[in-house]
Amino acid sequence: MSSPAATPAYRRLSVEERRTQLLGAALSLFAHRAPEDVSLDDVAEAAGVSRPLVYRYFPGGKQQLYEAALRSAADELELCFAEAQTGPLTQRLTHALDRYLAFVDEHDAGFSALLQGGSMAETSRTTAIVDEVRRAAAEQILVHLGVENPGPRLRMMVRTWIAAVEAASLIWLDEDKQPPLPELRDWLVDHLVALLTATAATDGQTAAVVRKALAHEAAEGPVGVLARRVIPVVSEAAHLL
Amino acid sequence: MSSPAATPAYRRLSVEERRTQLLGAALSLFAHRAPEDVSLDDVAEAAGVSRPLVYRYFPGGKQQLYEAALRSAADELELCFAEAQTGPLTQRLTHALDRYLAFVDEHDAGFSALLQGGSMAETSRTTAIVDEVRRAAAEQILVHLGVENPGPRLRMMVRTWIAAVEAASLIWLDEDKQPPLPELRDWLVDHLVALLTATAATDGQTAAVVRKALAHEAAEGPVGVLARRVIPVVSEAAHLL
Repeated sequence: MSSPAATPAYRRLSVEERRTQLLGAALSLFAHRAPEDVSLDDVAEAAGVSRPLVYRYFPGGKQQLYEAALRSAADELELCFAEAQTGPLTQRLTHALDRYLAFVDEHDAGFSALLQGGSMAETSRTTAIVDEVRRAAAEQILVHLGVENPGPRLRMMVRTWIAAVEAASLIWLDEDKQPPLPELRDWLVDHLVALLTATAATDGQTAAVVRKALAHEAAEGPVGVLARRVIPVVSEAAHLL
Repeated sequence: MSSPAATPAYRRLSVEERRTQLLGAALSLFAHRAPEDVSLDDVAEAAGVSRPLVYRYFPGGKQQLYEAALRSAADELELCFAEAQTGPLTQRLTHALDRYLAFVDEHDAGFSALLQGGSMAETSRTTAIVDEVRRAAAEQILVHLGVENPGPRLRMMVRTWIAAVEAASLIWLDEDKQPPLPELRDWLVDHLVALLTATAATDGQTAAVVRKALAHEAAEGPVGVLARRVIPVVSEAAHLL
């Protein structure tokens, strides 16, 4: 066993480097398989180390590795929605969704297993991590909406949109990653624009947000395109006005 | 112990009646507490029978009772979206959501525990039951949209709306059942109208559904009210047209 692939266990890594290496191996495995289908031996093999060495770093075994990998994935996911507060709202959303959906694409099976529930590896701790990501995403969106003290309706609107984004991501994975990502992303942007507009009808704070956001949108941007496409469909319903 | 409340165990019930009675007791307990907080003794006490009698009917103990109660709740929930195919779409949605939200109101803690995940009682079987309810609800909505062969975009739209309804229900429970149910219901109807309209922009099948649905809406109905409220907000954005 003198091939380079079999020897990385004997490279001198610091404790922190070794931990990061094991976590990286676990994360790649958990990204593409349900936690049930990953064994500690798989992690040891992927990292090129022995099973006892994995246990030395993660005495809690597979569950501890899974939760550590999830923690690390959650940190990455939270960064998706961190976006400079410049430019039209739809442009910022487009960038954030591009990052989020790239994450979903890259962690497909793990993302499904985590969010579809019923996994053996699901605990109150893993649920708390997922909830924290959702909360962080909602806070970021509210920042981009430019609201300092969001009321309950605006908060609920943002959180239901995030639930819709999650559901759409799971359906997309389930349907062999169709439609192409840019199409899904544009539809999710349209979804939030529509939801904001409908919520503006009954919530003054949302109405103010919509007015301000629309003023910064460009005619050739997503809202302009959406408006010009929607008008012919709804213009037949003049009896409602 | 001769009070009537302590004697129902000795009433002569048929096997089916006894099973229904135990299930009813379990369902009331699981509706208002997380499964972790319900014991087999609680079920026996609520039904006025002995613990061994509960085991005779449910040898799998609490988990079997929980899954049977969930099965029964799922059947009830699926009926919420069964609605006559007459009248404007928003009127049918209003009725369906009234029933769904009344169910959420009545099964509050159990509904939260089930959908928030991380419960000890969650298994691949309970997850499958929840998914079945979601699928049944989506099929019902598609029937009301009058589509025989819904394409992927329309399907995804309906399923993301159902995810948004679930998320809104959980937030509503979390926020001490605020806003009042009729307000939440109306907002969820507006939500679907907005989502349909936005999806019509990029999907021909959805555009046909929207045209047909709008023709049946009344000026004093939800879509008329929504349109008249939204127009002043968006009319400032003439630069987008």
